[in-house]
Amino acid sequence: MTVLTRKPQESLQESLQQVTRLLERHKLVEGMVHKQEGPKHDLVEKLVHRQNLTELQMKLATLHPADIAHILEALPHADRLMVWGLVDAEDDGEILLEVSDAVRESLLADMAPHEMVAAAGQLDTDELADLVPDLPSAVQSEVLDTLDAEDRAEVQSAMSYTEDQIGSLMDFEMVTIRADIKLEVVLRYLRRFDELPTHTDKLFVVDDNDILKGVLPLNRLLVSDPDKYVQEIMADDVVVFQPFDDAGEAAQAFERYDLVSAPVVDSNHKVIGRITVDQMVDVIREESDAEVLSLAGLKDEDLFSSVGKAVKNRWPWLALNICTAFIASRVIGSFEDTISHLVALAALMPIVSGIGGNTGTQTTTLIIRGLALGQIQPSNTRMLLLKELGIALINGLMWGSVLGVMAWALYGQIGLGLVMMGAMMLNMIVAALVGLFVPLIMQKFGRDPAYGSSVLITALTDSLGFFIFLGLATIFLM
Amino acid sequence: MTVLTRKPQESLQESLQQVTRLLERHKLVEGMVHKQEGPKHDLVEKLVHRQNLTELQMKLATLHPADIAHILEALPHADRLMVWGLVDAEDDGEILLEVSDAVRESLLADMAPHEMVAAAGQLDTDELADLVPDLPSAVQSEVLDTLDAEDRAEVQSAMSYTEDQIGSLMDFEMVTIRADIKLEVVLRYLRRFDELPTHTDKLFVVDDNDILKGVLPLNRLLVSDPDKYVQEIMADDVVVFQPFDDAGEAAQAFERYDLVSAPVVDSNHKVIGRITVDQMVDVIREESDAEVLSLAGLKDEDLFSSVGKAVKNRWPWLALNICTAFIASRVIGSFEDTISHLVALAALMPIVSGIGGNTGTQTTTLIIRGLALGQIQPSNTRMLLLKELGIALINGLMWGSVLGVMAWALYGQIGLGLVMMGAMMLNMIVAALVGLFVPLIMQKFGRDPAYGSSVLITALTDSLGFFIFLGLATIFLM
Repeated sequence: MTVLTRKPQESLQESLQQVTRLLERHKLVEGMVHKQEGPKHDLVEKLVHRQNLTELQMKLATLHPADIAHILEALPHADRLMVWGLVDAEDDGEILLEVSDAVRESLLADMAPHEMVAAAGQLDTDELADLVPDLPSAVQSEVLDTLDAEDRAEVQSAMSYTEDQIGSLMDFEMVTIRADIKLEVVLRYLRRFDELPTHTDKLFVVDDNDILKGVLPLNRLLVSDPDKYVQEIMADDVVVFQPFDDAGEAAQAFERYDLVSAPVVDSNHKVIGRITVDQMVDVIREESDAEVLSLAGLKDEDLFSSVGKAVKNRWPWLALNICTAFIASRVIGSFEDTISHLVALAALMPIVSGIGGNTGTQTTTLIIRGLALGQIQPSNTRMLLLKELGIALINGLMWGSVLGVMAWALYGQIGLGLVMMGAMMLNMIVAALVGLFVPLIMQKFGRDPAYGSSVLITALTDSLGFFIFLGLATIFLM
Repeated sequence: MTVLTRKPQESLQESLQQVTRLLERHKLVEGMVHKQEGPKHDLVEKLVHRQNLTELQMKLATLHPADIAHILEALPHADRLMVWGLVDAEDDGEILLEVSDAVRESLLADMAPHEMVAAAGQLDTDELADLVPDLPSAVQSEVLDTLDAEDRAEVQSAMSYTEDQIGSLMDFEMVTIRADIKLEVVLRYLRRFDELPTHTDKLFVVDDNDILKGVLPLNRLLVSDPDKYVQEIMADDVVVFQPFDDAGEAAQAFERYDLVSAPVVDSNHKVIGRITVDQMVDVIREESDAEVLSLAGLKDEDLFSSVGKAVKNRWPWLALNICTAFIASRVIGSFEDTISHLVALAALMPIVSGIGGNTGTQTTTLIIRGLALGQIQPSNTRMLLLKELGIALINGLMWGSVLGVMAWALYGQIGLGLVMMGAMMLNMIVAALVGLFVPLIMQKFGRDPAYGSSVLITALTDSLGFFIFLGLATIFLM
């Protein structure tokens, strides 16, 4: 007997390279088929062609759906659809679940309605609830019609929650037991299952009305005397969730308490579902992903999306950025007289604004993280303000002096050096205030503090930086 | 019997607020004690004072170490040390493991050597390996001396790996069984344990030399006939890791294959340890955290660190930023003649550079994500280049025209409008190239593509943007 030990990342990269190689060979052959006209050549090439595709198909058949999903994400559009067409249809559902939203869209666009229905047929109700909203509405109702009443109710219940609520992530496959039975009976009961739901690390102990009474971790079940009763060894200090709980906060609780699964209960403590760590890992990944992207003003973008889609995705931020840049430009415009008297100002002003923008972004990044982790509350905001102002003062004094001396040395005017220093200090303080309060205010008004913070901060530090520097110059140097 | 059902996030926020309230009341009383002198007052206040602290201590005693860690992170320095002093010493070790590196440092600075040794005494060997490197060297050797030979070897082995290697994260508490025994025997064997290691979802099947032969998931053990043999029902298709594997890649494998635990083997397939999903969740959180921070040029910073520490943390990026801003300023300086002829250029130039910087950052953010997820490889770089150039052309043409018309309208010079448009288009293309190639080249040279990408890109798009705009203006308008 041999153990198939895989180094997962290496084997995945290898598979991706193999698929890419086969695709390239395939395209090469196809190019030749199109160029050459002779019937004999044609036949030979077609055979090679088919052989290539078969080889690719066989390779794909050996891969885990999650790996195929990964490979699809890493392929340009045309190649992706080629591979998607060759994937075993039985894996379609799983793969659609694994890929990102943007890639899912590109795959669904290539599927016929009956293929979508077939793919949906392979999924559990909680998975269906994730996929169905992305299907065309005609297909949606067809999929729901194929379900029995109970399953349909589960799908519709899961679909009634928003994506960031626990309800949309819970599954319905849990094992429940009563408190007043012996462990021996539990063990016999479990043996009647063909398999336990994935990520079952505990059984939920309920009463006749499905009210949660505690949990029996499998680890305890296995080490305990089978003659004991469930209620003797069950844990009654349970972390539970409710369907309207925020998924991100639940994920943080999974992190803190190292959970593998947890019951979801309604307001009467009746068990209605279960969430598992694999979904929470996805939530953590998606949230951090969304945070990085939204700091740059992006929504989820398929790496290989069409140019048109990408332009649309990046448009809002760019438009906003152009407006703010225009305002900053008008600030400078109103000092054109000053600049025409002392053109050195034009060369020095981007230093003041640029450094303000960067320090403001640093502050904001820390504040956004603190907000996401629930570390910031009204009582400690004052401390944070003092800290950021302290940093701004020190940096402003230090770097303002350095740049002031440089400006003095370059242009031989001590006044210019002093204005530079003063402007740096003031703009550092502006940057600290803006970097602290922009995300706090956005949070207060119920907006995502990451999305667009960075544009707003750069806009404010730019415009105010120009205003402070050119204003000081107008007052002291004109 | 009652079930203690907790909504974890709410109860955590409540605890944090309670602790903060008690701390504030405490400080208020302390303030009064210091102000008032009369002996009677003094006594009363001291009693109230002590009562407050007792209440705080009792509250802390009810909390999970992970929750205390969270509260410590959310408290300003002085309050944090106050609470840290009141925490049950038995939880010290756990809490030190849970807090971030920056906060751990601030807590350790407040501990006596014997307290550190006591805290270390509460931990398993894999946890010790995480804590020990942060201890003063005298304490380190003392801690290692308290261990028996086997434990010391485990700690030293774990410490020999870098933080981003699996070896530093693996634990040594796994349950191994032989393949040629009946499940019944396995069940009896498990009952001899007081408890199974946390996150045990599978038993590792090994031969006499500890060579991995397969795994027996508990879920299969529980549903199978006890008369069967391990080898009949074990899985021999196992995802395994090696101690030098990258932790981030392992975490991605846990995500893809929904793992709870996995064996770590040496090059002979001998089982040497185990990694579990809770550690992988931490890796994912830390990596995404580090990515967000390093995009802003920050290393891990305690939200309530001292001003001095924060200045030091933010210093390198700021210094680099000042150098690049200075270079950009010199580029403008070399066009002072042109600007003094047409001062409108000074007002318009930050638009060109600023928008270049932002679009470059958007491109880079997507590329960094693609690299982190392993989606980018040599074969698809050309596609990405074409996509980004396409976007740059469209955006440059569209927004360049808008801004060109605006410049024309504002300053009444069609030439200025055309220069604006041309410069926008060219700088968009520069931004696309820079945004794509800077992270790719950094990755090629083995550097973290996130750290500092953003400074480099802004530096390049600023300097080149000024150069293109003022250069075109010099050629066509002078």
